[in-house]
Amino acid sequence: MKTISENTCFGGTQGVYSHTSTVCNCDMTFAVYLPPQAKSGPVPVLWYLSGLTCTHENAMTKAALQEHAARRGMAVVYPDTSPRGEGVADDEDYALGQGAGFYVNATQAPWAAHFQMYDYVLTELRELVMAQFPLADSHGITGHSMGGHGALTLALNNPDKFASVSAFAPIANPTASDWGRVQLAAYLGEDETAWQAHDATVLINAKGWSRDVLIDQGTSDQFLELLKPEALSAALASARIPGVFRMQPGYDHSYYFVSTFAGDHVDWHADRAG
Amino acid sequence: MKTISENTCFGGTQGVYSHTSTVCNCDMTFAVYLPPQAKSGPVPVLWYLSGLTCTHENAMTKAALQEHAARRGMAVVYPDTSPRGEGVADDEDYALGQGAGFYVNATQAPWAAHFQMYDYVLTELRELVMAQFPLADSHGITGHSMGGHGALTLALNNPDKFASVSAFAPIANPTASDWGRVQLAAYLGEDETAWQAHDATVLINAKGWSRDVLIDQGTSDQFLELLKPEALSAALASARIPGVFRMQPGYDHSYYFVSTFAGDHVDWHADRAG
Repeated sequence: MKTISENTCFGGTQGVYSHTSTVCNCDMTFAVYLPPQAKSGPVPVLWYLSGLTCTHENAMTKAALQEHAARRGMAVVYPDTSPRGEGVADDEDYALGQGAGFYVNATQAPWAAHFQMYDYVLTELRELVMAQFPLADSHGITGHSMGGHGALTLALNNPDKFASVSAFAPIANPTASDWGRVQLAAYLGEDETAWQAHDATVLINAKGWSRDVLIDQGTSDQFLELLKPEALSAALASARIPGVFRMQPGYDHSYYFVSTFAGDHVDWHADRAG
Repeated sequence: MKTISENTCFGGTQGVYSHTSTVCNCDMTFAVYLPPQAKSGPVPVLWYLSGLTCTHENAMTKAALQEHAARRGMAVVYPDTSPRGEGVADDEDYALGQGAGFYVNATQAPWAAHFQMYDYVLTELRELVMAQFPLADSHGITGHSMGGHGALTLALNNPDKFASVSAFAPIANPTASDWGRVQLAAYLGEDETAWQAHDATVLINAKGWSRDVLIDQGTSDQFLELLKPEALSAALASARIPGVFRMQPGYDHSYYFVSTFAGDHVDWHADRAG
């Protein structure tokens, strides 16, 4: 693991690191915020998965999570949104390929050689950060847009690996959206049964969720037709899940929305950390 | 005035606007954050002046002032750091010309035709925002690096126009720094007597300051030799000014430093708003 930068922030350290990923078969960059409490012992972890076109950097500079993570003594890990580099497949569509991994393990050419973001986040990067930083084995997960989709689907599929889950404006029903169908077909193939495990609404409808969940969604989000919050909201209510689904008046899809509610999400995860 | 964008943020509105500046003789872009309290009446204003290479945008996305401005009911105005555009003079040095106005009125060619940032911030933009937004006639001013220099010198020269002043890692003694001597010579000419009014340390030594001041400076700032905090710190103490000068351990020159102390600065100004 190489250190790219470290900046003191709210009494802790905002760092950027790179390493060679075996799973993604390329170098990967990620960011970690360690709160001041990490100086005296292991702290629980909040995973923040970013959206389309983002890198590890967008949330680290604009989501304002650090203030709240320092207040509550949580680390934040910000993975990249896809493998990258010259040998890595890409597409002209901003929503496919580099910057758009969708947090799945691709099975189809040319993507399968590198696009293994599900295993990367769930296993390889987790093991790396647990070994390199003073982290307790307690993990919450959240994310924005495509990253909200990733947070929900990783948690729903792996309840033993995450103590808590939340999302900001997630792609809530990708198997029914142009933000999803194109990518799931490309990465997983045309057989839609392989897509089911990567759709939060489908997962909730199929098997429920034994814990609670926090979702924030802006009413003025310019991508509501693609995000389909109503599908997830209905699924959560139908499954009688003790969730909090907030339609936030006037907010759009930007980081001005994410930063506004960052404190609530950090509190949500800190309150549920094991 | 044209609206470029408006995003809901912490219950208020983060907007970006442009207008044709008479003083700078070109179109100028600026940002305004209106807190939720502005919906029911005029709110006091905090001016945030940015540093070298910045636009109106850096602080608006990375300084995290909005949360605190919403909590305290203050507007924030983020001017650009210089005139810009095709007809506007520039230089290969990032610290001279576009992005580096230094908050002075240039008297020398080729700068004088556009580089009038002192009058622009102090008068033209103030009149515009007062006319266009629900703002009370109560102004605090702060800034970062070159913008900290601007905040201090504008306030020290115009105590009737600002109720409060603070700065993050200001260029504290530009007449003795390579961040200052080059620019003051270019904009104001070789006669150094014209530079005196644009150096916070010189101003404090010459005429003191009848109010208090808050300065934050990171001990790990990579530009300490250029910023010269010791000169300003000594001047404030010598003049017996009831200021708070904080050397913050481990912090560098980045927005991770600014955002960490943004809440303290907003509180400082809100507590002193008329």
